[in-house]
Amino acid sequence: MRSTRTGDLAMLVAHDQKRFFLRLETGKDLQTHHGVLQHDDLIGIPWGSEIRSHLGKRYYLLEPTLKDLLLNIKRRSQIIFPKDIGYILLRLSIGPGKTVVEAGTGSGALTTALAWMVGPQGKVISYDRREDMQALAHRNLKRVGLEGQVEFRLHDIAEGFDETEVDALFLDLPSPQIYLPQARVALCNGGTFGSILPTANQVSALLYALQRNSFALMEVCEIFLRFYKPVPERLRPTDRMVAHTGYLVFARAIIPEPQLETDASNADFTQAKPEQ
Amino acid sequence: MRSTRTGDLAMLVAHDQKRFFLRLETGKDLQTHHGVLQHDDLIGIPWGSEIRSHLGKRYYLLEPTLKDLLLNIKRRSQIIFPKDIGYILLRLSIGPGKTVVEAGTGSGALTTALAWMVGPQGKVISYDRREDMQALAHRNLKRVGLEGQVEFRLHDIAEGFDETEVDALFLDLPSPQIYLPQARVALCNGGTFGSILPTANQVSALLYALQRNSFALMEVCEIFLRFYKPVPERLRPTDRMVAHTGYLVFARAIIPEPQLETDASNADFTQAKPEQ
Amino acid sequence: MRSTRTGDLAMLVAHDQKRFFLRLETGKDLQTHHGVLQHDDLIGIPWGSEIRSHLGKRYYLLEPTLKDLLLNIKRRSQIIFPKDIGYILLRLSIGPGKTVVEAGTGSGALTTALAWMVGPQGKVISYDRREDMQALAHRNLKRVGLEGQVEFRLHDIAEGFDETEVDALFLDLPSPQIYLPQARVALCNGGTFGSILPTANQVSALLYALQRNSFALMEVCEIFLRFYKPVPERLRPTDRMVAHTGYLVFARAIIPEPQLETDASNADFTQAKPEQ
Amino acid sequence: MRSTRTGDLAMLVAHDQKRFFLRLETGKDLQTHHGVLQHDDLIGIPWGSEIRSHLGKRYYLLEPTLKDLLLNIKRRSQIIFPKDIGYILLRLSIGPGKTVVEAGTGSGALTTALAWMVGPQGKVISYDRREDMQALAHRNLKRVGLEGQVEFRLHDIAEGFDETEVDALFLDLPSPQIYLPQARVALCNGGTFGSILPTANQVSALLYALQRNSFALMEVCEIFLRFYKPVPERLRPTDRMVAHTGYLVFARAIIPEPQLETDASNADFTQAKPEQ
Repeated sequence: MRSTRTGDLAMLVAHDQKRFFLRLETGKDLQTHHGVLQHDDLIGIPWGSEIRSHLGKRYYLLEPTLKDLLLNIKRRSQIIFPKDIGYILLRLSIGPGKTVVEAGTGSGALTTALAWMVGPQGKVISYDRREDMQALAHRNLKRVGLEGQVEFRLHDIAEGFDETEVDALFLDLPSPQIYLPQARVALCNGGTFGSILPTANQVSALLYALQRNSFALMEVCEIFLRFYKPVPERLRPTDRMVAHTGYLVFARAIIPEPQLETDASNADFTQAKPEQ
Repeated sequence: MRSTRTGDLAMLVAHDQKRFFLRLETGKDLQTHHGVLQHDDLIGIPWGSEIRSHLGKRYYLLEPTLKDLLLNIKRRSQIIFPKDIGYILLRLSIGPGKTVVEAGTGSGALTTALAWMVGPQGKVISYDRREDMQALAHRNLKRVGLEGQVEFRLHDIAEGFDETEVDALFLDLPSPQIYLPQARVALCNGGTFGSILPTANQVSALLYALQRNSFALMEVCEIFLRFYKPVPERLRPTDRMVAHTGYLVFARAIIPEPQLETDASNADFTQAKPEQ
Repeated sequence: MRSTRTGDLAMLVAHDQKRFFLRLETGKDLQTHHGVLQHDDLIGIPWGSEIRSHLGKRYYLLEPTLKDLLLNIKRRSQIIFPKDIGYILLRLSIGPGKTVVEAGTGSGALTTALAWMVGPQGKVISYDRREDMQALAHRNLKRVGLEGQVEFRLHDIAEGFDETEVDALFLDLPSPQIYLPQARVALCNGGTFGSILPTANQVSALLYALQRNSFALMEVCEIFLRFYKPVPERLRPTDRMVAHTGYLVFARAIIPEPQLETDASNADFTQAKPEQ
Repeated sequence: MRSTRTGDLAMLVAHDQKRFFLRLETGKDLQTHHGVLQHDDLIGIPWGSEIRSHLGKRYYLLEPTLKDLLLNIKRRSQIIFPKDIGYILLRLSIGPGKTVVEAGTGSGALTTALAWMVGPQGKVISYDRREDMQALAHRNLKRVGLEGQVEFRLHDIAEGFDETEVDALFLDLPSPQIYLPQARVALCNGGTFGSILPTANQVSALLYALQRNSFALMEVCEIFLRFYKPVPERLRPTDRMVAHTGYLVFARAIIPEPQLETDASNADFTQAKPEQ
């Protein structure tokens, strides 16, 4: 039977859904508005236990799920939401052992999910121009023990990515279309590309550029998540929901048939032998 | 530069989105309505290449993404959709090295995604009462090379699961509420539970039962996926969409505080070691 | 050219969307956080004029639309939202000259829309058990000059409606299913029935009862309204939206073929004149 | 008790939702795949009656609702959907006695709803350049007895509308932005403007133009309608739904404050006395 141990990342969830994240350490305590909890009382007991503060407030002691980790990211920027991340993982074909590049890092929510899913055999390389954001993301990753899977690069991707032959590449920045040549060079042939954009105008701009930069199979979509109040005798959706996080855009890195063949007048089309 | 090799699973996508999945084999050919493609012409060239049938129909040669694999499952039952699977993976906290149980197997779509994400270090155990369905799912997994991560069990889960201490458990069957005692035994303390159900009445029934079987933190939600036509100068959603696949229900396996303790001044907190 | 006149109901809308409703009266003034506006300056000028407070804050002077009126209802209860009301009007086939019954009155939002649409030749009869609510609804109707089209009834509909042969009947109360016999008596044959309910459980209860009370052609639906920020160069949905107001249930009052007839070889089709 | 009469417009709805619309006439019959119904048997009986064809197929005999009429429009073009029309009516503040202009007529669905709601005291003026479409719309209106409320104009609105001082104006055509000067002249000050557009690019183009043509209070939205299978013991949404009909854009016709006051350098700004 699995029990908590010193050093574990734990989550306490009150019956009113209030949450606390803590790294279990001998001798420490957790101060809440509803009383104190001694770490020592939380160490060596089964995960899932219902426990109490000294004032009697009840909590469940749990390992955070990946979704819990994402929602608990310390943020100084809008993070990508779990509803979007779940679909991004499938669409980019992320999995154990994959190599993925993202830019920008932001607060590190997608970085966290990517690091989780590529596992120890994989690698995430995350670019951002802002040192403060990368420092924050690094702390967020370290806090959940995933920093080993991530390499941070503090430079402007306008100068190109250091990597080539990566499996997947995701751009979370305002004008992804201007970095597509660099993105195409970093991606392996057939690699998966993704981006998230708040406005329809940005989506149009990106779609135009994808067509011109050896990408194909474009997909644009939105994901909605609607919660219900989990009360069996009065089952109903919650009153309000997130209506928009961003439009998701996906494409595949392809090698177009040389222009030569479709348009004979263009003799010096150097892409005839693509990507040497 | 990554190129195709004999034995690779490949996907050909026409410009009209028509898709073919094939395992590349020397000497074979692929017959389509728009001409023949020789496997030999597809082997040893870069992934992502745009190629032509002998009648001039153009295709992209690509490795299928996880989403492509899911949508290409040979099915004799409704499969769980990628939009739902992405979120299920985050919510159940699936990742490299995890052990997951699911029932029923069905055609094996969720099985495929779980096998992909737990990776070689993890394990998926999939239960179904129907031999024909498991045979189909097994073929589907084998086709994409993921059968090594999955153990199929052909028995009725009313008799209990063979496993204990599993990280996550998912029930995709009409009356999940009647198997909750068995599910709770299989799950580790704090483990993640999920289910997908088409009707509101089933959700209510499951929520009632979760409360009575040592589960907590119930979440009920729906995921919607809305596609856009990827035409930059006329950006608009598609005319129709999938409006309903199922309600998703999630919960955590917990150890409730003994009633004794809640009701009274009981000093020796015996449930410190529950569930022995 | 239409201009404002003493006695008109007017709306002032600031550039930040802040709204004021006022009945124009000579000699009065409107105090706002951004300065004073004299009614005299607002009377006799064209509708649509952009005007200023004495502190320079700019407003448009407009006649409120029906939607504006609905959103400005003084409320002590949840009102039915415009998005739902628009569809209810079509589904109940409301229009000039119709007679409609509703219960309960609540704050009077649906009452307002019904009164507006049936016009001077039509009639709305609105039931509620609570005198305070009906007084509030009456004030709301009077404020917008529609009280002449509405008769309020302060009694419990369990005792039956005073009317018969009404064109349409709408129930906005927690257990509509217990009043269906009374509703069927009030409705003309073929009349339209509607209800709005927050939970799925209530919908099921109502559907069961409709089948047993001479209603048919049941329809259950939800309406969603998603707003966009009207910024042409950055077009995007708003961040959050109303996710649930209620499930709408509609049905028609029918005269079922007598059981006799369906079950047997009954020759004289006596139900040719049912329901006398 | 209301009964059917010769000349009434009636709707027969089978238990499988198959519908027939007919004008009741002595001596006529209705041929269906499931047998014949004599009009004479349908005349003089109560609305709502369940009746049978000579082969025993059962139907309900009903007056069509406004929604039924809209869905039964004979069409040669995409019609505006009831879900959108309901909200358009509220937003344009349509009601008994109002004067409304629309362009283009199309198959006449919105025309029908507008004619219904303005009633005998109101008026709808509908513009289209295509004679065949207007002839179709005229037949559709006549079929449901609403042609008396509508004036059709067969000319290009680029030349301007014949009307001024109309309460509301709706443009259902591909490039509404190029007709805004004409629309503004036709509308009364403060009048309500609306349009429906399939693509985001069109919405942006219209929003830019509204700002430049004395419109304000722009609103952009979408309406979704989600149906449920009305089965009480298995309540669930239908599998598929309409994902997009169009973006709705609304605005009010305003009189901007003379530029003079905000920008003193512009002395000859003739709009100082707007709209003579």
